[in-house]
Amino acid sequence: MKKLISIGFLTCAMAAAWRLAVIAQQASTNGPKYTSSGELLRPGDYREWVYLTSGLGMTYGPALPPAARRPPNFDNVFVNRESHRQFMATGKWPDKTIFALEIRRAEQHVSIDNGGQTQGGLVRLEVAVKDQGRFPDTTWGYFDFGAMPDLAAATAALPKTAACYSCHRDNTAVEWTFVQFYPTLFEVAKRLGTVKSTYDPSHKP
Amino acid sequence: MKKLISIGFLTCAMAAAWRLAVIAQQASTNGPKYTSSGELLRPGDYREWVYLTSGLGMTYGPALPPAARRPPNFDNVFVNRESHRQFMATGKWPDKTIFALEIRRAEQHVSIDNGGQTQGGLVRLEVAVKDQGRFPDTTWGYFDFGAMPDLAAATAALPKTAACYSCHRDNTAVEWTFVQFYPTLFEVAKRLGTVKSTYDPSHKP
Repeated sequence: MKKLISIGFLTCAMAAAWRLAVIAQQASTNGPKYTSSGELLRPGDYREWVYLTSGLGMTYGPALPPAARRPPNFDNVFVNRESHRQFMATGKWPDKTIFALEIRRAEQHVSIDNGGQTQGGLVRLEVAVKDQGRFPDTTWGYFDFGAMPDLAAATAALPKTAACYSCHRDNTAVEWTFVQFYPTLFEVAKRLGTVKSTYDPSHKP
Repeated sequence: MKKLISIGFLTCAMAAAWRLAVIAQQASTNGPKYTSSGELLRPGDYREWVYLTSGLGMTYGPALPPAARRPPNFDNVFVNRESHRQFMATGKWPDKTIFALEIRRAEQHVSIDNGGQTQGGLVRLEVAVKDQGRFPDTTWGYFDFGAMPDLAAATAALPKTAACYSCHRDNTAVEWTFVQFYPTLFEVAKRLGTVKSTYDPSHKP
């Protein structure tokens, strides 16, 4: 009988350990990680997060005359999986949501393509984090990991005077996020009533 | 004592049930699902798979003169998570790999954008599946779920005479997949030596 109980509890202990391992694995790819001095570690796995949208040549200031324009880049936006799941259910971002914005070269005439643009090498990486404890006044913090081939392994949040803070505060459809550019999420936010009452789709800064 | 054993086994049963639920959840989002008559069910969760790339206005035939061109669309490519994990380790696709290609409208002047193009509504959805049992001669099968707002819930594989088969056979860098357009995967395939010896980056059909 003692043996039976031991086997029972051993099996339970193994099941519990397995469950903890699963949870730990999820945690390791979910949410921001900081160094002891408060720098954000560059997320190594953001390409496995949920993809939200791409833009090509997005221009947030005045449009430049054609002669002054640089070749346009693609931008790809990703968000951590757990926060995406919560947004799809609530239209809101939980604390510790983390976004990655990667900029990639746009390439033409690659392989069999005869007229379009496709994505090439990584150019730079930027990250936004919702962290009410660390950013009590703005809720969100913005991080620039710089340009290839010298992406930082960790970086401090940009100062509150950086343009990202006021731009995200003033021009976004949901909280401080550009949900108006993420078609699958914008539908959810409109249905759940979480689009800001101040959001004006025709507003240009 | 009997009570202790019962609690022990009940806990184990719950842990086992939980584990099975986790496995079932993973299975439900991984790999192709068919109807009893062999039609592929439209994957409902492909936006949570791993994103591979986007193109804008990709043109696989001869480039048209500007006056004859339609407004370009974005295309986004996704692959199931488990197959992506295996490709990153081996440079090869396991059987039951499933790709989704979604076409989205390209929109201009949305919100604060003054010069780029961003993604709008879904236009159409196509899927490719590696299934050696179902497609012994081609290995891959191609499925067209049609255009919005009338996407099919399930559809049969396109006939072998459809252009996708010969195009994927003749112009792809790895197996029957356009890995040359997926920058994070192309690096892996080159490193692991799985790019086809017949792949010619300058070949135009």
